[in-house]
Amino acid sequence: MSAAGPRPVSIFDVAKLAGVSHQTVSRVINDAPMVADATRARVKAAIADLGYRPNRSARALAGGAVRSVTVLTTDTSLYGTAETLRGIEDAARAAGFSVLISVMDPDQDYSEADILGRLSHDGAAAIVIAHDEVTTYAMRVLHERQPGTTVATGGEHLGNGDRDADWLISLDDRTVAARATRYLLDMGHRTVHYLAIPGKASRRTGWAEALAAAGITAPEAVDSGWSVAAAAEAATGLVADPAVTAILCGNDDLAFGVLHAAHRAGRSVPGDLSVVGFDDYPLAAYHVPPLTTVDLDFRGVGRGAFDLLRYKLEGGSDPRPSWRSPELVVRETSGPPRQ
Amino acid sequence: MSAAGPRPVSIFDVAKLAGVSHQTVSRVINDAPMVADATRARVKAAIADLGYRPNRSARALAGGAVRSVTVLTTDTSLYGTAETLRGIEDAARAAGFSVLISVMDPDQDYSEADILGRLSHDGAAAIVIAHDEVTTYAMRVLHERQPGTTVATGGEHLGNGDRDADWLISLDDRTVAARATRYLLDMGHRTVHYLAIPGKASRRTGWAEALAAAGITAPEAVDSGWSVAAAAEAATGLVADPAVTAILCGNDDLAFGVLHAAHRAGRSVPGDLSVVGFDDYPLAAYHVPPLTTVDLDFRGVGRGAFDLLRYKLEGGSDPRPSWRSPELVVRETSGPPRQ
Repeated sequence: MSAAGPRPVSIFDVAKLAGVSHQTVSRVINDAPMVADATRARVKAAIADLGYRPNRSARALAGGAVRSVTVLTTDTSLYGTAETLRGIEDAARAAGFSVLISVMDPDQDYSEADILGRLSHDGAAAIVIAHDEVTTYAMRVLHERQPGTTVATGGEHLGNGDRDADWLISLDDRTVAARATRYLLDMGHRTVHYLAIPGKASRRTGWAEALAAAGITAPEAVDSGWSVAAAAEAATGLVADPAVTAILCGNDDLAFGVLHAAHRAGRSVPGDLSVVGFDDYPLAAYHVPPLTTVDLDFRGVGRGAFDLLRYKLEGGSDPRPSWRSPELVVRETSGPPRQ
Repeated sequence: MSAAGPRPVSIFDVAKLAGVSHQTVSRVINDAPMVADATRARVKAAIADLGYRPNRSARALAGGAVRSVTVLTTDTSLYGTAETLRGIEDAARAAGFSVLISVMDPDQDYSEADILGRLSHDGAAAIVIAHDEVTTYAMRVLHERQPGTTVATGGEHLGNGDRDADWLISLDDRTVAARATRYLLDMGHRTVHYLAIPGKASRRTGWAEALAAAGITAPEAVDSGWSVAAAAEAATGLVADPAVTAILCGNDDLAFGVLHAAHRAGRSVPGDLSVVGFDDYPLAAYHVPPLTTVDLDFRGVGRGAFDLLRYKLEGGSDPRPSWRSPELVVRETSGPPRQ
């Protein structure tokens, strides 16, 4: 670590002069409860005496305004979101931008002002990772109110007209879901079952469209939660049914859950049952047996979203497309059905 | 989504009045290059005419200052960090705080001012996820300069005196690494090999201490990168050696890589080789065979860090400890060595 610059006045100095704890100074600054009026006045006087300033001064000491980008997202721990974030972080770091992530609550009701208030200032550089309803709403608000600075990734809640928008980067998981379904049908499976993750309607739609195109009435999709455990439970009925020979899963965690359930039920993969995942987790290729799945380049999309934002801010040449298109990766959990 | 409140003046309005694009207004606000002086002046005049204000006004419309906590971390996509973040997000959401994540570069040299400048204001509520050198430095800076508002999670880079600090929450992975090593020795393995993740010295130390306590000279630890692929590669020599009967791995991804390499080398698990992971990923229990590993409650630690922060800001009762202690979870990838 480098040595510090000249030491600015800190909350510590204020506390010393006011004769209170640092916690109390912090409470005064934050307008928190449990501070007596007299104490509050003493702290405010100390702040004035010392010329104590908010951290903008620290930022200035560090060499002027830091260029930053704010990322709006909901759950940061889901695979697709985490990888997209990682791509944004990598590209931003390379360009000397710092990254701020503003985490939204998928169950909360936001106003336009709430969304705009999440930026450090109006017109601030922003990227929305739009994988659900709340973030898709945020994307729309920012696009309409600050069109020059918003880039979004995602897709399933969008109207068709948005697909070619010059502010939007998305992976077409619907088309590749259809391709994965056709791949299983082409090997001789009479139908393909679908184990669904919450939300992602585009994957389910692609699966249903491929079955319809082949003249097959789609079986009821089976809903699963996000976890491997939930998938193993949700798939119990499917793997117990010998008529079920192929299952497309909403992501790789669900596929791992199905493989576990199939093992428990004594059904061999891919002999008795073909299992296809979605996302191509790093583990998929190293799983025993290696998992057939769909490669989705979330990290590349994150990098692309940042590069597009920068292009819109600073010009240069349009960076798109710099990520891999979705692709079916055939490994060892899928094959023709037994006759 | 709720309807918007009264519409504040937006960047869009400024652009219209100045007769420029929204991108141009954004460039002026961001002090970006490629704007002619005359254009810049026109935009600034429009900003003044319309009384356009930064987003603090939007925040006020949304019902006053939003209580927020800033989380400092490096890579958001690593399992331990992602789960800790998720725990912080869950607890903050339940308490009505919004979460801002400030992403640091593990390879950058930060000054004190850089660190302090990452908070929205001096004294702002902050949590550091300290899993590497940069974030441990950030934790120290914030603890020294703003002691009332800093809570940190992590541990391996800390001096002993910090372990009982009242602003620090950490999981003791050193002790449980020793316990996992002893478990393997107690079953009759002559020694235990270690496949190491980058950084995490505490796990390696616990392993070495347990061997030393048993009077065994520790074999050279084998270094691996973070990925399953890197681990499968790094473990090639270990799994090829019939004298190696037990491998402790720095995390579950590494354990999955070892299982893949062992399968490729034709060594059976746990008959020929015992494999023990670290972290207890959600997949571990559902892997075929289920993985013996160490349960580390990162999500609970994240929740605990937020609860401790809130306790320090607002009082109440000390929330610690509200998370599970690290524990060895014996499943089916470990057993006694063949005689």
